Amino acid sequence: MKALVYGGPGTKAWKDVPDPGIVEPTDAVVRIDTTTICGTDLHILKGDVPAVEPGRILGHEGVGTVTEVGSSVSGIRAGDRVIISCIKSCGHCVNCRKGLFSHCLGDEGQVGTGWILGHLIDGTQAEFVRVPYADNSLHKLPHGVSDDQAVMLSDILPTAFEIGVLDGRVAPGDIIAVVGAGPIGLAVMSTAGLCGASTIIAIDPNESRLERASDFGATHTVNPESPDWISDVLALTDGAGVDVAMEAVGLPETFEMALRLVRPGGNVANIGVHGKPVELPLQDLWIRNINISMGLVNTNTTPMLLRLVAQHKLSAEKFATHHFPLDRIMDAYDTFSRAAETEALKVVLSRNPHD
Amino acid sequence: MKALVYGGPGTKAWKDVPDPGIVEPTDAVVRIDTTTICGTDLHILKGDVPAVEPGRILGHEGVGTVTEVGSSVSGIRAGDRVIISCIKSCGHCVNCRKGLFSHCLGDEGQVGTGWILGHLIDGTQAEFVRVPYADNSLHKLPHGVSDDQAVMLSDILPTAFEIGVLDGRVAPGDIIAVVGAGPIGLAVMSTAGLCGASTIIAIDPNESRLERASDFGATHTVNPESPDWISDVLALTDGAGVDVAMEAVGLPETFEMALRLVRPGGNVANIGVHGKPVELPLQDLWIRNINISMGLVNTNTTPMLLRLVAQHKLSAEKFATHHFPLDRIMDAYDTFSRAAETEALKVVLSRNPHD
Repeated sequence: MKALVYGGPGTKAWKDVPDPGIVEPTDAVVRIDTTTICGTDLHILKGDVPAVEPGRILGHEGVGTVTEVGSSVSGIRAGDRVIISCIKSCGHCVNCRKGLFSHCLGDEGQVGTGWILGHLIDGTQAEFVRVPYADNSLHKLPHGVSDDQAVMLSDILPTAFEIGVLDGRVAPGDIIAVVGAGPIGLAVMSTAGLCGASTIIAIDPNESRLERASDFGATHTVNPESPDWISDVLALTDGAGVDVAMEAVGLPETFEMALRLVRPGGNVANIGVHGKPVELPLQDLWIRNINISMGLVNTNTTPMLLRLVAQHKLSAEKFATHHFPLDRIMDAYDTFSRAAETEALKVVLSRNPHD
Repeated sequence: MKALVYGGPGTKAWKDVPDPGIVEPTDAVVRIDTTTICGTDLHILKGDVPAVEPGRILGHEGVGTVTEVGSSVSGIRAGDRVIISCIKSCGHCVNCRKGLFSHCLGDEGQVGTGWILGHLIDGTQAEFVRVPYADNSLHKLPHGVSDDQAVMLSDILPTAFEIGVLDGRVAPGDIIAVVGAGPIGLAVMSTAGLCGASTIIAIDPNESRLERASDFGATHTVNPESPDWISDVLALTDGAGVDVAMEAVGLPETFEMALRLVRPGGNVANIGVHGKPVELPLQDLWIRNINISMGLVNTNTTPMLLRLVAQHKLSAEKFATHHFPLDRIMDAYDTFSRAAETEALKVVLSRNPHD
């Protein structure tokens, strides 16, 4: 088969590799119908994620058709159309039993992480993929949900909802600020209303992203390059700050922005993937009764979000801004990596239906 | 009357000052029967809390007898024996209505803090004190609760329980580590069982403090000066870390210790008062699904804790290690400020019953 293979920092190739097969009785093999590229893949290509070794097939998001299942798989069959979750779950380790699938200790991926696809084992940017713990790591798709919708449930929608909205403890009537209006920030804006957020403030220096934010649920937009940006945000509150500030970028500066915006008694939810430490001004914060959360998605909410998509209550398809056939993935990477210019949110790659 | 007056950094005096009186209709005046000294008072004396102006009477903990109430006070009468809460609450501002008394916006103390006694207005290290919002800021004492017990409910027991145990989300069966076995750390150990903590690990470099920790609920003790201290703590868990790590010191080093001990999916509760920023290694933490809480006590749990003390289910009196008459407060400060040597936890100052 063909797959997108990481060759070390700065290098990738779409090339022939051996087909995957069943290794463990809990595995499934899935033919990829649709996949996409995540900001994390760009981090890997920069060399920021050293656990990814050259030769690894990238990708942790996908929708496909099961071609084969291991002998102990009971809930999934060949022919099923499925979402491939970015997080695997053995279902029986101490962390899985608590719903902390992000830290599944199951044998695959010995470092104790649920994220192994395109990281510690071969991923979804390929014609086929082996999926461990298929009963827990795949979600059967109901009729009427398109691939464009379903692929947003592999990672970005559950990540934004769980790590942003739920961990940030968004509550009815809350005023929230989302620092960063990229795909994850927009996915927060799209799902914050599920927990009752009333005012959703998008903060981003890119005006075209701010414009788009309104289509994804933002009620107000603020450009942090304006000298008055903080007072502009505070004016939308009672002056004390927002109830929940989300960080959806992954930089020290944007994390500090979130800290500056939150009210006493409020929450800061970090969703960004960080590469550097940040300075936490505990001398000012210890007395402010704030809470700071962070983490990798567990995907516990994927079935619920899938139901909302099927009911047309969540417009997942809006994230799919660019489409490519799977074998043009090198072009898709180029488009996605120049997102500021191409205005790409998610680039969707689809199998040629005649293959 | 006599009172302990702050004279600027490094300076204090027990001296004659005017008696306090009713200023607002919501006030009470309380004769101090028992007071104590907090670590925060030592910070003020070092000049670390610049909002405290020279001339201010220090102290935010106390038990006393009401001598006079304002015209709108309805639940408290002259003659009532009361705990003076370290936090005032107007009861009707936006924060008080959420139970966030720590950030009460009531007129007294314009900076929006519930802690004003011995900070922004005159405090309890005096023969009498004016207490604003008396209906909410005083707690009537039932018979059978001693002053030694009651004075621990002004601050340290609710602070440890709310900011450590509750904000740290201690749950049944949890393994918790408490960094710092001073009064606040010991108060965490004393109250963590209320939420079901099963293993309580006291961490302190002072061996006599560690010995004492066992009397306050610690099930295990670890000295961080041992080179193996981290593996000693991890050996008490499944190797992954503790469910909740509490910081009860207020230094960057001890905060970092708490971060190193917590398991994926766990909580770090900061209780310490900090004077410096800390480095937060977000590049390692973002993926660990941890939660960091911090704050000033709200005292919402004071009535519940008082009930437990009255029922002999919480041994508040054990914190009272040294006793002085109120007019020997300068000696009491000396004993308390040399706690490492004197082994003082709380020094209790009592009115001469014949005065």
